Amino acid sequence: MPDTWGQKLAEPLFERLTVIGCGLIGSSLLRVARRNNLARTLVAADISPAICERATELTLADQTTCDLAGAVAGSDLVILCVPVGANESVAESIGPALRIGAIVSDVGSVKGAVMAALSPHMPAGAHLIPAHPVAGTEHSGPDAGFATLFLNRWCILTPPPGADETAIKKLSDFWTAAGSNVEVMTSEHHDLVLAITSHVPHLIAYNIVGTAADLELVTQSEVIKFSAGGFRDFTRIAASDPTMWRDVFLNNKEAVLEILGRFTEDLSALQRMIRWGDGDGLFNLFTRTRNIRRSIIESGQETAAPDFGRHQSDPQ
Amino acid sequence: MPDTWGQKLAEPLFERLTVIGCGLIGSSLLRVARRNNLARTLVAADISPAICERATELTLADQTTCDLAGAVAGSDLVILCVPVGANESVAESIGPALRIGAIVSDVGSVKGAVMAALSPHMPAGAHLIPAHPVAGTEHSGPDAGFATLFLNRWCILTPPPGADETAIKKLSDFWTAAGSNVEVMTSEHHDLVLAITSHVPHLIAYNIVGTAADLELVTQSEVIKFSAGGFRDFTRIAASDPTMWRDVFLNNKEAVLEILGRFTEDLSALQRMIRWGDGDGLFNLFTRTRNIRRSIIESGQETAAPDFGRHQSDPQ
Repeated sequence: MPDTWGQKLAEPLFERLTVIGCGLIGSSLLRVARRNNLARTLVAADISPAICERATELTLADQTTCDLAGAVAGSDLVILCVPVGANESVAESIGPALRIGAIVSDVGSVKGAVMAALSPHMPAGAHLIPAHPVAGTEHSGPDAGFATLFLNRWCILTPPPGADETAIKKLSDFWTAAGSNVEVMTSEHHDLVLAITSHVPHLIAYNIVGTAADLELVTQSEVIKFSAGGFRDFTRIAASDPTMWRDVFLNNKEAVLEILGRFTEDLSALQRMIRWGDGDGLFNLFTRTRNIRRSIIESGQETAAPDFGRHQSDPQ
Repeated sequence: MPDTWGQKLAEPLFERLTVIGCGLIGSSLLRVARRNNLARTLVAADISPAICERATELTLADQTTCDLAGAVAGSDLVILCVPVGANESVAESIGPALRIGAIVSDVGSVKGAVMAALSPHMPAGAHLIPAHPVAGTEHSGPDAGFATLFLNRWCILTPPPGADETAIKKLSDFWTAAGSNVEVMTSEHHDLVLAITSHVPHLIAYNIVGTAADLELVTQSEVIKFSAGGFRDFTRIAASDPTMWRDVFLNNKEAVLEILGRFTEDLSALQRMIRWGDGDGLFNLFTRTRNIRRSIIESGQETAAPDFGRHQSDPQ
C-alpha cells in the first residue's frame, strides 16, 4: 500500500485538475483527488446536464460544468474519462482551450486508437500522456465511484515516443498518490496485454450470457435459479457499461481478433478431448490453471477469500 | 431463508447418516447436519487415511472410518460425496452392506451417468434418489467446508421413474433443513441445465486461463499484474478441483458438446461483428446481458455488492 494513501499530500501535485466525464472512473478520480489533496482546485465536466447536476449534488468537484472548453481553461492536468469512442470529439472541443504546458491524459481501455484520436487536436506545448488504470466494477455513473477504486491496482502509462519526461513523471506521481502502481509501456503492447487480461474475457462473458438467454430447451428461470454453479460469475462483467465495451471492441479489433483466434483454437482442442474421452488431457489443463490464481492472489490483485468473499458480503 | 436454519430440529430426520467422501461438499454436509440436528448419529467415511485423520481432528462426525461398507451398515441415509467417476466403485463396495429401506443419494454435478453407475449396485429395498446441491467454492478438502454452504442455494433431486414418494419427501426435507431450496427434475433435463449454468462456464474459464498461460507475446507476470481487468474473475472457477471437473466432462459429454456448439456459434457471430465494425450489434448484445444479472441478484443467488463485494473482503 503506498505511503501516501493514508495521508493527504502536504502540497498538491497540480494546481487545477479537470476531469471530463463523471462516470465510475471520473467520479472515483475526483473523490481520491480530493481525499489525498492531489490538486488544489477540482473541476468536473460532462456533456450531460443530468450527470453535471448529480456531480454537483455529490460535490465531486469545486466547479462543475457542461462547458468542456471552459472547464479545461487554466488547468495543468486534464483527464478524459469518457468511452473510448468519445475521445476524439472531446479533444476537438477542448484543444483550442488547453493551456501551454498542460498534461492531457485519459483512462481508456484501448491506447493505440485513443492516441490516434487525441493527438491531432493537441496544441503545441500540451503534453499528451495516455493512461489506463486497470480498475473498475460492473457499475456505472457518478454514484458508483469511490475513492479506493484505484488502490493497489495497476495504472499503465503509454507515452508516445519523445514525450516529455517531466510530464510522464508528474502523471506517474499523480497515479501513485491515488494509490496505484504505475507501469510504462508502448500503446501497441498495452493493447495486446489488455486483449488477454480484459477484452477477450469480457467478450466471452457477454457471449456465454447471450447463449444462455437464447436457449429454448432451458428456461430463463432455470438459468437464474441454478446460476450459482458458475454461470453467475460471468454475469458480473457482462453487466458492464455497453457503450464503453462496444467502443473497446471497435477500437482494439486486431489484438482482440488475434487473442480470440487463440482462444477458439484452444477451445476446439478441449472440445476434442471431451468428445474422445481424453481424461488425462483434461486433468492436466485443469491442474495447470490452478497455479495462476495462486499467483494473482499472492501479487495482491485478488482476494484470497473463497468465492470472492461472497459469503461475507451476501445478505444470506 | 428457511425457518429451520436458525434453529435445530427438535427431532432428527434420520437416525444415522453416513457421508462418504469428506471434501468440500461432504464436510459441509456433516457440519450442517450436526448444526441443525439432521441426523442422530453422523458417520464420516473416506478411502483416504489422511482425509479420515483430518476429519477426525475436525470432529466432523461421531464416527470416522476408511471402511466404506462398515460405515453404511445400519444407516438410513447414505450420501456419496465423491467425484462423479468414483461413484461406481463406491457403490460396489457399499451395496451389500446397505440396510433395507436406506435412502442412498449423492451430490454429483452430473445425474444421468451417476444413476447408471449406482443403480446396478443397489440392493432391493434401498431407495436411490440422486441429488445435486448447486453450491460450492473453488476450494477443496475437509478444511474448506462450512455449515452455510448450502444456505439459500438450490438442491436438485432427480429421482428415477417410480421412485418411492416417501423417500423423495424425506430427502427433500433433509436438504430444506440444510438451508436449501429443493427442485425435482429428470436426470436428462438436469444434465442439460447444468451444462449451461455450470459445466460450459467452467470449461471456458479453464480454457481462457490456459490460453493466457500459453501466450508468448505477453508474459505471465503481465497477465497476473493486469488481471483486475476481468481475467481474474475466470481464475476462480478455473481453480476448482481437477479430478471433479475431469469427471464432469467425461460424464456429461453430450449436453456439454451441445451447449458448447451453441456457444462457439454465437462467438463466431460476435467475432464477425468486431471484424466488420458492427457497433449496433455489439451494443444490443451488451445491453441484453445486463438484465440477467439483475434477475440473478433479485432471486437471491448473487450478492448485490459491486465486484462481488471484493472491496469489503480485500485486505487492501
